[in-house]
Amino acid sequence: MPEQIFSYQHLFEFTTQVFKKIGCSDEHADTASKALLSADLRGVDSHGVARLSGYVRLWEAKRVNAKPEIRVIHETPSTAVVDGDSGLGLVVAPYAMKIAIDKAGKAGTGWVSVQNSNHFGIAGYHAMQALQHDMIGLAMTNASPLVAPTFSIDRMLGTNPICVAAPAGEEPPFVADLATTTAANGKLEILQRKNAETPGGWVQDKDGNPSHDPHILKKGGSLLPLGGDRDHGSHKGYALGAIVDIFSALLSGANYAPWVPPFPAYVPMPEQQPGKGIGHFLGAMRIDAFRPASEFKQAMDHWIRGFRNCRTIPGEEKVLVPGDPEREFENDRSVNGIPLLESVVTDLKQTGEKFGIKLG
Amino acid sequence: MPEQIFSYQHLFEFTTQVFKKIGCSDEHADTASKALLSADLRGVDSHGVARLSGYVRLWEAKRVNAKPEIRVIHETPSTAVVDGDSGLGLVVAPYAMKIAIDKAGKAGTGWVSVQNSNHFGIAGYHAMQALQHDMIGLAMTNASPLVAPTFSIDRMLGTNPICVAAPAGEEPPFVADLATTTAANGKLEILQRKNAETPGGWVQDKDGNPSHDPHILKKGGSLLPLGGDRDHGSHKGYALGAIVDIFSALLSGANYAPWVPPFPAYVPMPEQQPGKGIGHFLGAMRIDAFRPASEFKQAMDHWIRGFRNCRTIPGEEKVLVPGDPEREFENDRSVNGIPLLESVVTDLKQTGEKFGIKLG
Repeated sequence: MPEQIFSYQHLFEFTTQVFKKIGCSDEHADTASKALLSADLRGVDSHGVARLSGYVRLWEAKRVNAKPEIRVIHETPSTAVVDGDSGLGLVVAPYAMKIAIDKAGKAGTGWVSVQNSNHFGIAGYHAMQALQHDMIGLAMTNASPLVAPTFSIDRMLGTNPICVAAPAGEEPPFVADLATTTAANGKLEILQRKNAETPGGWVQDKDGNPSHDPHILKKGGSLLPLGGDRDHGSHKGYALGAIVDIFSALLSGANYAPWVPPFPAYVPMPEQQPGKGIGHFLGAMRIDAFRPASEFKQAMDHWIRGFRNCRTIPGEEKVLVPGDPEREFENDRSVNGIPLLESVVTDLKQTGEKFGIKLG
Repeated sequence: MPEQIFSYQHLFEFTTQVFKKIGCSDEHADTASKALLSADLRGVDSHGVARLSGYVRLWEAKRVNAKPEIRVIHETPSTAVVDGDSGLGLVVAPYAMKIAIDKAGKAGTGWVSVQNSNHFGIAGYHAMQALQHDMIGLAMTNASPLVAPTFSIDRMLGTNPICVAAPAGEEPPFVADLATTTAANGKLEILQRKNAETPGGWVQDKDGNPSHDPHILKKGGSLLPLGGDRDHGSHKGYALGAIVDIFSALLSGANYAPWVPPFPAYVPMPEQQPGKGIGHFLGAMRIDAFRPASEFKQAMDHWIRGFRNCRTIPGEEKVLVPGDPEREFENDRSVNGIPLLESVVTDLKQTGEKFGIKLG
């Protein structure tokens, strides 16, 4: 798979121009580009610039409003509900996270449920906004239904990720960013390119039989909840995905379960729409609303070092702490650039051409 | 395995008497019995009266204080830290949950991190206290280290459960109560009694090799995080267990990771004690801090019915909603009584004899 390498700055200028061309304000184009490209920096290639054309197509289909009036429609000292006005989730989620952080500053914690939004990129980017304020950040979102609950043939949930980010002292922060499925869709795409089989417990076919086909989603199959099957705890992955759906959509008034709007603009919208757009849930907890931040961070350092010093199973070199792999990508790519597959480069060029922008 | 059936009331009177004999106040004995027996009612036999003798031995070892002065040591409008004064978790957690609920009443949400506590029974009992107030309840706790993180041989985390309970309207509430391991310890005990093998992905031996031996924990082996191995997402189960540890212990000042005190009183305490006792995290979110409770509950009914109506995979009768199996147990056992294994009955009788109390 031939690749081309682009600097972060180069891609940032390109995506910012594209977002402006569809009508985003300078500020929104900047915000959206940062959120989008954080995925490429952190090695989550499926959620970064590879999706830019998808966002543009949603705008073309009038499912994304490039000039949203994002607003708080209900609030208490520690909570708010935000109406994203069909804006890019890449813009709506940072707005909501800022409110969560502001509320945490005053009330100790802040929790914002969001309706009427669109896909927000990686959960990690949003949760990590809390770190610089000595807060724990939390981000969740629901997503297009691709996941069959335990015992079900029907796709009822998205990959519904959860991210929790917690600051440390001398050590880098703890950042757990996980889809509530055995494997995220991006992992299937990698196997598709390699023409390889999926391990067991990742997917099932349209009749609910176990499958190893990475193309199975296009054939009516489903992703499986974390755990894979009942014997291996898939009812827990299903429950976690359900919690994300409830916090993101049932609390906010967004669409939920199989009625979440699909990401690909060519897929028809569900007939039933019990809510508005897709939903997110953002949270911030001020550390010193519990104990002095310096004490907490010292304990986090001790915690993290404890895990790094574990003895390893045969064949493995070290025990990782959540956030380690993504940070290694970020350290490398922010210096050495971001490698893009030729197919992604072609797609970006075509998107640029629509607006007379060269990728260069 | 011969069993004997006892009514809830019968067991309640017995455990209440035992708790009073070790020095609990009438109120605490009542609170502890309710929390403990909720496990037996809900079919989580490993966490109910089967553990009564374990709690008594912790008291005998002076690790449980039967007359704790439980108190808030820090608070903000939406947060608190509670010092459990080495009390029974069965008493400390309900105290903390009440504070979370009270704070949610005023500030929209309430989040309480607890230090210096002991095991609190099932997370579900505590989270469900929020339901009657039209709130979403959340409960977590850390626990004795039995779980090896991905790639590790060392046991670093407990089974660290998470429960989220959300009210519905005409449907029963959503109650997801899950250990962050592939299988909880109680599941191993069932296989031990049957002399059966564990499925793959549940446990590993002391050198980190896959194992199917349900007795492996006594031989230096470990439980595995939800997912089982890296290919099946165990890094996600590990991350979830870590989040529970951070919220329960790093935020409160309790012991964490491998330094959490062991439940069996005969196991020596860890040499290092970076905090106090074990930690919990309790939360409550008032539904109408986000949207009218009636709207939310109507949406929850629609959500729940959507899942119940899913088509099933071959060989399965129906798709369950989190909380269904435990509620079926509760409906049955509150009417027909609670079956106890002979070994548990013998253990209860011996515990009673210490204090001159007959099980009857």
